[in-house]
Amino acid sequence: MAARTPPEAAGAGTASAGTDPGSDAPAVLPGGAVTARALARRLGVSQSMISRAFSPGASIAPAMRARILAAAEALGYRPNFIAASLSRRRSSLVGLVMGELSNPFYPAVLEQFSQALQAAGFQTLLFTVPPGQEADAALPLLRQYHVDAVVVTSASLSSAGAAHWRGDGRSALLFNRAGDGPTPLDSIACDNVGGGRLAAEALLARGRQRPAFVAGRADTSTSREREAGFFAVFAERGLAPPRRIEAGEYSYAAGHRAALAAGDTDGLFFANDILALGGLDALRHGRGRRVPEEVSVIGFDDIPMAAWPAYELATLRQPVAAMVAASVALLRARLSGQAGPEPHRQRLPAELLRRASL
Amino acid sequence: MAARTPPEAAGAGTASAGTDPGSDAPAVLPGGAVTARALARRLGVSQSMISRAFSPGASIAPAMRARILAAAEALGYRPNFIAASLSRRRSSLVGLVMGELSNPFYPAVLEQFSQALQAAGFQTLLFTVPPGQEADAALPLLRQYHVDAVVVTSASLSSAGAAHWRGDGRSALLFNRAGDGPTPLDSIACDNVGGGRLAAEALLARGRQRPAFVAGRADTSTSREREAGFFAVFAERGLAPPRRIEAGEYSYAAGHRAALAAGDTDGLFFANDILALGGLDALRHGRGRRVPEEVSVIGFDDIPMAAWPAYELATLRQPVAAMVAASVALLRARLSGQAGPEPHRQRLPAELLRRASL
Repeated sequence: MAARTPPEAAGAGTASAGTDPGSDAPAVLPGGAVTARALARRLGVSQSMISRAFSPGASIAPAMRARILAAAEALGYRPNFIAASLSRRRSSLVGLVMGELSNPFYPAVLEQFSQALQAAGFQTLLFTVPPGQEADAALPLLRQYHVDAVVVTSASLSSAGAAHWRGDGRSALLFNRAGDGPTPLDSIACDNVGGGRLAAEALLARGRQRPAFVAGRADTSTSREREAGFFAVFAERGLAPPRRIEAGEYSYAAGHRAALAAGDTDGLFFANDILALGGLDALRHGRGRRVPEEVSVIGFDDIPMAAWPAYELATLRQPVAAMVAASVALLRARLSGQAGPEPHRQRLPAELLRRASL
Repeated sequence: MAARTPPEAAGAGTASAGTDPGSDAPAVLPGGAVTARALARRLGVSQSMISRAFSPGASIAPAMRARILAAAEALGYRPNFIAASLSRRRSSLVGLVMGELSNPFYPAVLEQFSQALQAAGFQTLLFTVPPGQEADAALPLLRQYHVDAVVVTSASLSSAGAAHWRGDGRSALLFNRAGDGPTPLDSIACDNVGGGRLAAEALLARGRQRPAFVAGRADTSTSREREAGFFAVFAERGLAPPRRIEAGEYSYAAGHRAALAAGDTDGLFFANDILALGGLDALRHGRGRRVPEEVSVIGFDDIPMAAWPAYELATLRQPVAAMVAASVALLRARLSGQAGPEPHRQRLPAELLRRASL
């Protein structure tokens, strides 16, 4: 079969990269089914019409698409997305780089992203990185799989990594993260500063005198932004700044430890819900403090457990569905060339849920 | 460029499937870097040696691999996995099909699977299906991306879907699921029957007289097997069968409802932890029952929240890390042809964790 491909094409073509060109060059469809050409001939349409029928969002009359899909099903034709990606330079794959999934906020993000991408005709190539490690390690692999775009959430991307990635003309989006390096990136997140302000105002309205903030990991923009909004309200009103406690990571255990070390406070704002749940248990079961009679507690995210009767945690709800929808819309705009050259930075408002812990 | 490829090759070759052959046939490496051929020439080695250096598990001397990787880095060579997959018929992609991620057991499974696959040189193509829907819808897409294998967890695969998939010579593995249809599949799970027996023995040892089982979704083998083991112990001892309550789904809310409807029972075994946590809150906050003084509660899975002080839920711990390791080892054996033709079915033991709710 290899003899049918001229040597110069085999030498320079992608199909031979990383493998021996003389061994097993592709000439038949894996799976052995009918080709696009045979299907097109049978239906009396062009091959590009067949291609459009299988491309989400492509311009084609609905009746024509239905006719082609029905014939493809009957004849066993399967479009080969990988081969198509070689010529179209599109794989319909989106790389999703995530850190830890142990914070229950992120499984919900992942599930909603996966389903929204599927609905838009994309598949999710998942890459997980250990907490605290940068997403850069994923980029060479994602490049090799020709992903159309990369979404980074619960992990960070170095400026060098971002610059290298974008230098290839690829799209990168930070989700629930700010891109504050010298290479600005598209980013979609909650208005964390505004959420921090709402938490401060709620504690002050409740008459709390000795507030404290429990920070998450220092390298996360979410914790820094929530802290900035929280402290700004006290500064603007000429009040003493709240106490600040460093949890160091986003976990139930870290929140538990932070609350045990919080000293004399009557109002705790945690950088996120999983910290706040550990804190609530430490206050009640570890220190015998009554919530909210003696101390108010506010979290951030609105993970499912926050609403459970054992917790009834007041929190800032992140509009995850809207954030995911905005992200997928932005990816589609980028891939179709309908977004401008400058990075798009969107902040969606957080909503204060006044539950019993406040 | 298209003129360099003979028409008969373009018509039958995978590179033209689903796209217009005259538009943009591949002749240069995306990214514009050095080709495998150039790298091989530079190093004085064969192209298949280059290929082996980038193939996890391929036979190559470590010093040669290190030399090739260093030269590739210096010259900007990137192996094109997608093109390689066309000739090797391998993509190093594993499709992971999951149902809902809202049960906290599954994010942990997903994270461990993703990391174990990455360590073994595979990437995870994630496909999520709505709860109760079969994984079959994912198969055509996964086939188009040439995944080496599919792992189905927290979702089920129809017998027809399994037969069709395996008819293509592809590997499929059920994780935390039994393959009990006419087409047996590889499956790796916890010994759910044994776990159910341990729960029954623990409640009987505690002197409980009016036990009950809260079932999950009827279409899940996990719930059926845990129930079978639980009931078998009572039958073998000549005791009346426990009460049976149908939760209908795996959620906190369903467990809450089931416990409110459980009537007069002094020992509840829930089909999984997320049900049991809802049940615990309903017993304490909804019905004012004292746990464990008046009623014992046992779950299954050992999700992180089970250990929180607000719950202290006794449960059957699933050995997730060992189950994932066994799964990845089995996939590798299947892909290298070292596993026999018959399906491999492995059950790892569950461990009873005696926490305060018992």
